[in-house]
Amino acid sequence: MIKLTERQDKILQIVKQNGPITGQEIAVKLSLTRAALRPDLAILTMSGKLDARPRVGYFFNENYEVKRQAEKFLHQQVIDYKAHPIVVDKSTAVYDAIVQLFLEDVGTLYAVDSRGHLAGVVSRKDLLRATLGNKNLHELPVSVIMTRMPNIFTIRPDATLLEAAKKMIDNHIDSLPVVKEVEEQRNTYFLLGRITKTTITRAYLEIMER
Amino acid sequence: MIKLTERQDKILQIVKQNGPITGQEIAVKLSLTRAALRPDLAILTMSGKLDARPRVGYFFNENYEVKRQAEKFLHQQVIDYKAHPIVVDKSTAVYDAIVQLFLEDVGTLYAVDSRGHLAGVVSRKDLLRATLGNKNLHELPVSVIMTRMPNIFTIRPDATLLEAAKKMIDNHIDSLPVVKEVEEQRNTYFLLGRITKTTITRAYLEIMER
Repeated sequence: MIKLTERQDKILQIVKQNGPITGQEIAVKLSLTRAALRPDLAILTMSGKLDARPRVGYFFNENYEVKRQAEKFLHQQVIDYKAHPIVVDKSTAVYDAIVQLFLEDVGTLYAVDSRGHLAGVVSRKDLLRATLGNKNLHELPVSVIMTRMPNIFTIRPDATLLEAAKKMIDNHIDSLPVVKEVEEQRNTYFLLGRITKTTITRAYLEIMER
Repeated sequence: MIKLTERQDKILQIVKQNGPITGQEIAVKLSLTRAALRPDLAILTMSGKLDARPRVGYFFNENYEVKRQAEKFLHQQVIDYKAHPIVVDKSTAVYDAIVQLFLEDVGTLYAVDSRGHLAGVVSRKDLLRATLGNKNLHELPVSVIMTRMPNIFTIRPDATLLEAAKKMIDNHIDSLPVVKEVEEQRNTYFLLGRITKTTITRAYLEIMER
């Protein structure tokens, strides 16, 4: 984004109120020569704030702000919106995982291996199914009930929120782990965060309330 | 929305390509008189599709389409986006409710009383907590573990999606029952549907992909 000078701001206001208006007419209003204004008008048209049409003059480009906003929303990146992931070791007992889930008030836990790499995803649904199984929840490790790599849908930090939302809807899932691939190890990831439908609902509010 | 005539569509195209353009110039291009065009130009300017400026002529109002879209999104109503609610009788055993939740693959069940009025909300979290309680899940009714009226956040069918999204974010909840008040009975509702963060994520995709 270019920061406008005071004179460029004044030109913008003049065109907003009087456009279409010729460069000569703007110059008169500012008590300047047409030549002195040329660089400012060039900056304002090149940046898209003003439109110029031969033999008519300069217009204020009302679409500019709208388009700039839309661009901004389309480029919102996962890395800037991700939430903190709640992590357990994959050897954690199911009972302790459930306690963790209630303490942190999240819908999904991420299980990691001894090297800190993403090993699996444990949802409320997985835990609920496990509790019905009548097994000893104090001894059953989450690694037995989790969805494991490589069957996990993930998202990269430089992906857009739009891509994340699409992935969740298309695959009927409520959240995505944000991951960075461990160098030269296929399907091995470091966990950086999580994107949920709550993240997307917040982004929706941001757009609608602009 | 006004449906345009073929001639009005032609005028719109001419102004789009040649604007600003005077009424006289448009008339020449269409081999018509200025007077014959007057009603069409009046309709196009009154509906906001064209802008007119004295001594300059007609412009195409590019903002019009953008604004119309934005308006549309702001007025999306709960009634048009609600999903089907999964309902159990409030006397249903917790075990059967869990089976229902898995069969329907939803995050929330709605419990109704014998008159079919909304009695409570049962979430995965409520069910998970119940399974840890070591009670007999085949005999424990959901009415014991559910969040009950009037402690339930609800939304009306004529509310906007924006209001629904705000309510979910502000109250840290994942879904809202869509309800209609039973006449003259405060806090007594018929259940019409549900709005979830999935609904909002879909609306987000619709906006971003327009």
